[in-house]
Parts: sequence; C-alpha cells; structure tokens
Amino acid sequence: MESVKFKYNPHISVDCVVFGFDGEFIRVLLIKRKQAGQEVYALPGDLLRLSESLDSAASRILNDLTGLKDIYLEQFRTFGDLDRISDPIDIEWLNTIREHPEERVVTIAYYSLIKVDRFDLKASFFAEQVLWQPIDEKRQLAFDHNNIANTAWSMLRDKIRHEPIVAFSLLPDKFTLRQLQGLYESIVGSTLDKRNFRKRIQGKKFITPLDKFESGVAHKPARYYHFNKEIYNSEFEKGQWFLF
Amino acid sequence: MESVKFKYNPHISVDCVVFGFDGEFIRVLLIKRKQAGQEVYALPGDLLRLSESLDSAASRILNDLTGLKDIYLEQFRTFGDLDRISDPIDIEWLNTIREHPEERVVTIAYYSLIKVDRFDLKASFFAEQVLWQPIDEKRQLAFDHNNIANTAWSMLRDKIRHEPIVAFSLLPDKFTLRQLQGLYESIVGSTLDKRNFRKRIQGKKFITPLDKFESGVAHKPARYYHFNKEIYNSEFEKGQWFLF
Repeated sequence: MESVKFKYNPHISVDCVVFGFDGEFIRVLLIKRKQAGQEVYALPGDLLRLSESLDSAASRILNDLTGLKDIYLEQFRTFGDLDRISDPIDIEWLNTIREHPEERVVTIAYYSLIKVDRFDLKASFFAEQVLWQPIDEKRQLAFDHNNIANTAWSMLRDKIRHEPIVAFSLLPDKFTLRQLQGLYESIVGSTLDKRNFRKRIQGKKFITPLDKFESGVAHKPARYYHFNKEIYNSEFEKGQWFLF
Repeated sequence: MESVKFKYNPHISVDCVVFGFDGEFIRVLLIKRKQAGQEVYALPGDLLRLSESLDSAASRILNDLTGLKDIYLEQFRTFGDLDRISDPIDIEWLNTIREHPEERVVTIAYYSLIKVDRFDLKASFFAEQVLWQPIDEKRQLAFDHNNIANTAWSMLRDKIRHEPIVAFSLLPDKFTLRQLQGLYESIVGSTLDKRNFRKRIQGKKFITPLDKFESGVAHKPARYYHFNKEIYNSEFEKGQWFLF
C-alpha cells in the first residue's frame, strides 16, 4: 500500500507492460480505475520516487498496483513526446493527483513475458481492478499507453525471434509439438503450416524428444519434447557472429 | 550555438554514443572539456529542453557539442542509478553549471554507427575538443559514461549480429572480401579465420560478386562485391519467424 512519506520526481514515471501466456493466448496486464463515472484502462505505471533506481521503481510500481512480484522486468524504451498527454479525460485525472499536471512526464517503460497461471493478481493503490486482456482485443488505453504497449509487443517479438529461449520459458518442462506450435501461433498472430513447422523443429538439436507420451487423450498420444538449455546456449551464445 | 532563452528539465538529460568506422578501427566520439586545469572526457550530452522531444534533443545536443548533424540516432537505454554521479570532479563541474547539482539526473542514451570520413567535427558550446577515440583504448570518462558507452557497444554488436545490414552501411558501394573481413574483425575485436569467413560469405546471396576488380595494387587484384539490399530484405524481413 502506498504511503505519503515518499518524495517523487514529478517529471519521470515508469510504466510496465507485462505479457502473459495462458497456454492459448498472449495477454497484456492492465489496470482499471474509475474516474468520474467512466472506466479507464491503463498500463500499471506511476511516478519515480527520488530514493529508488529505475529497475526498483518498475518492480515496486507493478507490485503496488497489481500484486505481482519477483518478475523479471526489462527496460525497453523511454517515451517523452510533448503530446503524450492530450486526452481531456487523462488531463482531468492528472489534475486530481499531480501538482503540475500540465508539465511533461517522461516515462521509462519495462516489459516482461510470463506464464499467466503462475501469479495471483491483487488490485490495490489507485487500481480498482487488474485484468489480463488478450492482445488481439483492442481497447483504448490512457495517455500514450496504446503506443507503449504496441512498441513493447513489437520489440518483444523481435527478441523472441533472435532469442527463442524467451518463448520456451512459457512452456511446461515437457511439451508436445502441438503445444509448441500453438505458442508460436499466438506470438506470430496467425496459424502456421504444421508440416513446415515440424520440418524446422527437426533441425534444432536443442529440442530433444523424450521417451514419454501423453496419456488419457482421445487422439493418438503425442510425444513429449524437452528444451535443452545447454545445447541451446552452446549454439546461440558462443561466438555466433556470422549468423548472416 | 547555445542561447539562454531555453528552459531545461533539471532531472532529465540525453547522451549520445556515436561509433565511427574509419576503414580500419571502430571509434567512439568524445568531447573534452577543461575543468580546474584538468582535462575531462565525456560523451556528448546535456539536459533536455522543455520544448523538445527526446529524439530532437539527441540531434540538437550532438550538433551543439560536436558539429555533427543529420545522423540517425537510436534510443537504446535510459540510465538512472542513484549513484550515477559520484566522482568529486563531476560534482564540482555540476556545481558550476546546475542549480541543484545534488539531484539525480536520469539520462536517455542514444547510439549511432557511421563512417568517420563522412563528417566534419566542430567543437562548440562547452566542448573544447571533439575526438574519435578507438574503442579498444580505455579512458576514464565523466559520470557513468564508461558504463553507457560499454552498454551501447554491447547492444550495437547484438544488433549487427541480428541485422547485418547495419554493418554493410559502413562499407563502400563496392568492397573486397578483405575489406568486409576487416570490418567484422574490428566489430568482433579479434582476427577471424580467412577460410571460414569466406565459406560463410559464399552462402549469402545478398553479397553478390561484381565483374570488377581492384586496380593499381601490388598484390593480385581482388574482386569487388556488392551488398544487394533487395535480396537481403527478402531474406531477413519477411516472416523469418523461425530463424531458430
């Protein structure tokens, strides 16, 4: 819970874009607040305290508003356009909580990608509700948060493309190729050809087949696979200067 | 040239890390200022004006201090540690130019990679000299600028690894494989095996051989090659979701 004893920098804030995979869809974490009878949705974010580092602020703010903690947040971009805040409803909100609501706030944005089921949400502070919204469901967010969330998703997709380990962290220890394809389809945002997908998988030594199969399923039990981190690291991290 | 009519945000600055390739070495652009008889080296950087966007600030500050302009600068990270400024000589410098030198300044950092020969330098404002320092030559920089420069170089190398087009922009329109290898050696920071290097090059359709050869050289004239942007784009930018 927030206290009044902290001093804040009135011109610097931190926003968190947390993406979650629920086994089927990628979702983004939003807070909802009530304002003059209207519901306003936003990314979890707040001003930077004078006494905290940027990384600490991101963790603290996410926890204050949503209850999530111990999540790896990575800074991805800082937003500071002069017209970041232009919607009258946003200005009205700032009038109620800030001393100089007309002054520009530069916001340092962090992202994260987690499994949805691993965490409990708890709205507090100025958040009235916390929700996991599917990313393909468009919704008007406060300030420039639509732009921040879209930029985060675009940069995170790029990261997954170059560092697939980020995606594998969303799967269970053992997974079927159907689950892996489902995950990639939710990241890419469209269906993928099964044959092509499996052909590419076969060349990847870090995806190792197990002698274990699904049980209790109506269809033919599928084989389980395992992500081998050691093989992955030796392929991806050692002097791969000439990927081109 | 700087004017007094602008208002600045006292807690937000912008720093520029410009890397240059001179055909042989990668260098980083530094400014030198005189302070109490000592020479202090730093990245070009200054406070953000209230009236400018972050991107505009980066261009303006780089131009004010070094004379460079029309350079593509990309934001890569924001630095805001509580102990960013701890060296007495840095504090002394801030005492002479800032109203509240003890307060934390969060700095938004940009990087760029250019050909050294394309630009003229001109030190002005508080910079007494501008210089291109080879990146393997260590030098103590002001504030946390060593950390900022090292982070920039590390992130830029990652970018080149994933988007080799960034490196090819440093070469002339037609180049020899020796030039290409020299560039990569300067990026990697060590010598590369010529045979392995050429083997990898052969598989790259976007590096196309020309029917042109060096002239006026003592050794056997080498063939020129060309970077084919169209082939590169079709290979790298279209749905390459499964690089893994």
